[in-house]
Amino acid sequence: GHPLALIAGPCVIESEDIVLKTAEQVKAIADRLDMPLIFKSSYLKDNRSSAESYQGPGLEKGLKILQKVKDTFGIPVLSDIHDAHDAEACAEVLDVIQVPAFLSMQTTLLLAVARTGKVINVKKGQFLAASDMQTAINKITGQGNDRILLTERGTFFGYHNLIVDMRNLKIMRDLGYPVVLDPTHAIRKYGVSSSDPRGGAKEFIFGLTRAGVAAGVDALFIETHPDCDGALCDAASMLPLQKLEELLKQAKAIDELIKPHLPFDETGLYDYKNYSGK
Amino acid sequence: GHPLALIAGPCVIESEDIVLKTAEQVKAIADRLDMPLIFKSSYLKDNRSSAESYQGPGLEKGLKILQKVKDTFGIPVLSDIHDAHDAEACAEVLDVIQVPAFLSMQTTLLLAVARTGKVINVKKGQFLAASDMQTAINKITGQGNDRILLTERGTFFGYHNLIVDMRNLKIMRDLGYPVVLDPTHAIRKYGVSSSDPRGGAKEFIFGLTRAGVAAGVDALFIETHPDCDGALCDAASMLPLQKLEELLKQAKAIDELIKPHLPFDETGLYDYKNYSGK
Amino acid sequence: GHPLALIAGPCVIESEDIVLKTAEQVKAIADRLDMPLIFKSSYLKDNRSSAESYQGPGLEKGLKILQKVKDTFGIPVLSDIHDAHDAEACAEVLDVIQVPAFLSMQTTLLLAVARTGKVINVKKGQFLAASDMQTAINKITGQGNDRILLTERGTFFGYHNLIVDMRNLKIMRDLGYPVVLDPTHAIRKYGVSSSDPRGGAKEFIFGLTRAGVAAGVDALFIETHPDCDGALCDAASMLPLQKLEELLKQAKAIDELIKPHLPFDETGLYDYKNYSGK
Amino acid sequence: GHPLALIAGPCVIESEDIVLKTAEQVKAIADRLDMPLIFKSSYLKDNRSSAESYQGPGLEKGLKILQKVKDTFGIPVLSDIHDAHDAEACAEVLDVIQVPAFLSMQTTLLLAVARTGKVINVKKGQFLAASDMQTAINKITGQGNDRILLTERGTFFGYHNLIVDMRNLKIMRDLGYPVVLDPTHAIRKYGVSSSDPRGGAKEFIFGLTRAGVAAGVDALFIETHPDCDGALCDAASMLPLQKLEELLKQAKAIDELIKPHLPFDETGLYDYKNYSGK
Repeated sequence: GHPLALIAGPCVIESEDIVLKTAEQVKAIADRLDMPLIFKSSYLKDNRSSAESYQGPGLEKGLKILQKVKDTFGIPVLSDIHDAHDAEACAEVLDVIQVPAFLSMQTTLLLAVARTGKVINVKKGQFLAASDMQTAINKITGQGNDRILLTERGTFFGYHNLIVDMRNLKIMRDLGYPVVLDPTHAIRKYGVSSSDPRGGAKEFIFGLTRAGVAAGVDALFIETHPDCDGALCDAASMLPLQKLEELLKQAKAIDELIKPHLPFDETGLYDYKNYSGK
Repeated sequence: GHPLALIAGPCVIESEDIVLKTAEQVKAIADRLDMPLIFKSSYLKDNRSSAESYQGPGLEKGLKILQKVKDTFGIPVLSDIHDAHDAEACAEVLDVIQVPAFLSMQTTLLLAVARTGKVINVKKGQFLAASDMQTAINKITGQGNDRILLTERGTFFGYHNLIVDMRNLKIMRDLGYPVVLDPTHAIRKYGVSSSDPRGGAKEFIFGLTRAGVAAGVDALFIETHPDCDGALCDAASMLPLQKLEELLKQAKAIDELIKPHLPFDETGLYDYKNYSGK
Repeated sequence: GHPLALIAGPCVIESEDIVLKTAEQVKAIADRLDMPLIFKSSYLKDNRSSAESYQGPGLEKGLKILQKVKDTFGIPVLSDIHDAHDAEACAEVLDVIQVPAFLSMQTTLLLAVARTGKVINVKKGQFLAASDMQTAINKITGQGNDRILLTERGTFFGYHNLIVDMRNLKIMRDLGYPVVLDPTHAIRKYGVSSSDPRGGAKEFIFGLTRAGVAAGVDALFIETHPDCDGALCDAASMLPLQKLEELLKQAKAIDELIKPHLPFDETGLYDYKNYSGK
Repeated sequence: GHPLALIAGPCVIESEDIVLKTAEQVKAIADRLDMPLIFKSSYLKDNRSSAESYQGPGLEKGLKILQKVKDTFGIPVLSDIHDAHDAEACAEVLDVIQVPAFLSMQTTLLLAVARTGKVINVKKGQFLAASDMQTAINKITGQGNDRILLTERGTFFGYHNLIVDMRNLKIMRDLGYPVVLDPTHAIRKYGVSSSDPRGGAKEFIFGLTRAGVAAGVDALFIETHPDCDGALCDAASMLPLQKLEELLKQAKAIDELIKPHLPFDETGLYDYKNYSGK
């Protein structure tokens, strides 16, 4: 089977400098652990709790920075997308286009990204059963694109609380696509600003990651930052970059132990090596 | 205080004929009960469970039909909007622009509709606490628009089940804006197609409506259709038009009974009479 | 149809003096509003969050005080029961024996109380669907007793939060038994001591009560105390006795308005008048 | 640190023959894997969905059979208890007395079992936050007994659905006591009889077990039966005994991998070896 893959990077693009610095370090870690890597950082965050919050550099400037990541480090890149009109521009640069959880039912957006032919990572809506992801899959495959990732990032469980239902990993894997676990968003506490330390419960990142890998996933999605305290978005929930390697070591060891026991066919996370360097 | 108002109409615009026929009947009922009326029908449904489902006539054709409703019956009209690029065109015709529940955190959309100066009806996300609607309010008022409605349409309560938390009506009213209850979406069962009769639990519409009005709301949002069995969207959850008057009679009687007891100031639903006929 | 009935009193028996004083006032209110009354106060609270919390006077002493309420005011009385061994002694005095929500699945307890032939009020477990109350009903009717009340007192909705699902009132009524709404327990915030004012959200009692009556119930269950601040149990959630009449006035007015519209046969709350005075 | 321990056996005592046969096989598996073992089977199930369901042999007969397990195999034994009056008799035979989830707030029961001085396994109520288990702990330690186990067996997540919140394992471990994961009850579907195959989702047992062990637990609680189809209780949710060894192999391997990484002090599951044989 394919090895456990990693999607990681800062929540939002803050500057070319921070992005390149983070990408370099994340790549070094992934290389040491022999994990396929997709670098993640968003050019726009459109669902922040305040219009005054930093939203990112925007489409054009953001994609340029992500292109520089590709050129410099030869790794595939991912950003989420909030507007179907952005799809074609995104496809010029991104290797994986991500549909945010809140938008996982939006037909126009799903069709637009599907048509780009790129790998599409759909995050399961916090308001959806895992089996409902079949509707997103159908919209994408209906456009002739079946390179799909499905990401669990927590389900609404009472006000201001997300829960990771480990059953969802199996249910989504049984839909026939690689499954990604995002523990860093699952531990966000909505209703509290992500710049407030109480806005996230980082003490659960390690446990949820280990649990998800043991249940069975194809990749981890970890938002991480070299200086969480100074981060402009999701400071309360990102994993400090200094702890990433330890987390991945534990995860990889569990993955190698249990993957041979898993009944499902290991199609892995596609051949990302081919996307890098473009 | 202002009387209980009504937002009603078919889920989606199927044809000019059906829309005009429904508008005529809904208006006759609202007139008999002396209820302020806003006619609702969507030009596009962008979150249907299948890309093959009927999505509506689209922006241009849909707005023309809604304009005809205004011209013919002199009543204000509402549609939801899924794309910020549609905001200006919507503002040419719509009296109330509605932000769907899934999109209630999308900053770009909220800012775009806010700038039109129109009344904005924001549906509470199924994944949000009522108090979190303050973030949507702030985004809208930050653009100089404070004509806002907040709609409760159910909260995620375990997979494939929405619950109406009656406390939310008070919490949102305490945020300072009129509150609308939408029982017809609250009884939808996700994961089942809305064309399947099992896709909705219509037997609860009367009880939830009475309960919400007794708790205290400013308006009801009722999706209704003259021929639910033949409807192209939400057949399983819309109220048959034939039952609308009986529902509203019960609601209005309760409203008149309890409004004098409510501690909050009755600002009512703005002066919709002024929007009609444009 | 039968008029809306009332089950009311302090959470736990603190002293004969407080019980009699409260019973007198509650009876005066019920008489003025022409509401059938069952006086409620528990001889033992067995699920308090601390073993040091006041638990009540115990079986023997508590029943004596409740007998005095019957003798003095001629009203039927109710207590909950936690131990099947208490059933026979309870039946000597109580007109209604109440099975607590946490114990609503305990077979031994249900069978023991059923055999007394008394009216049994089963509170729906916070962890049960309304339809699951059929299992409690079957256990009781299997003993030849079909005088059953079913009480909604909130359902677990995320940690430390109960929600009142108004649909449950109809579902339980459709099981064929009178349904009671208990708003005073539904607003308890578990995880906070009931002696801490933050342990309850009393601001929702009026709205939930009105909503439930409008949805359709046979009786209200209201824990009330003449001096909530000094109460030894559930201080944070009981309704101040001073507000009871206003609450019931609103409830009764709604009930009279909607009962004629309800499709279900009004069997009412049995003939409690016959139980009083024994 | 202590090795991962195992609590296992059939839900209820059906006959001496089945109990001894199962105990023999479970012991053989535990011995091969070098896992400390506590044999579990209940003398009475008091919360079955029907009064006609098999409830077990009762206190006296059941304890005799469990004593025979101890005498024959030299392993400690566990049963749950539903009635405080049974506590002393239980203490004559049982090494671990288990408080059922529904009863985890019942003061009288907790105090009675605490006073026996036996190890007490408290299952977290499906309606409780993990942190609320502090109240059960306080009731037990207040009697001078601090030999406590805390078991996660699922939390209510919408009607008829339990979810395992992996965060609870850490929260309860941080309360200072060994934590047990019971995946076999977590996958029960309430509202469906446990004799109906649809009453459980056994396909999730392996994944939940691996996930929980990876998150970090001290013991697993696995209800298992040599002939699930013919079992008299929980047929739909017990693990076939034939699959137990494979499950435990996976669990043990993960446990050995991650325990050295866990920040908490490994006090383990007390010295059960000393309880066996009495």
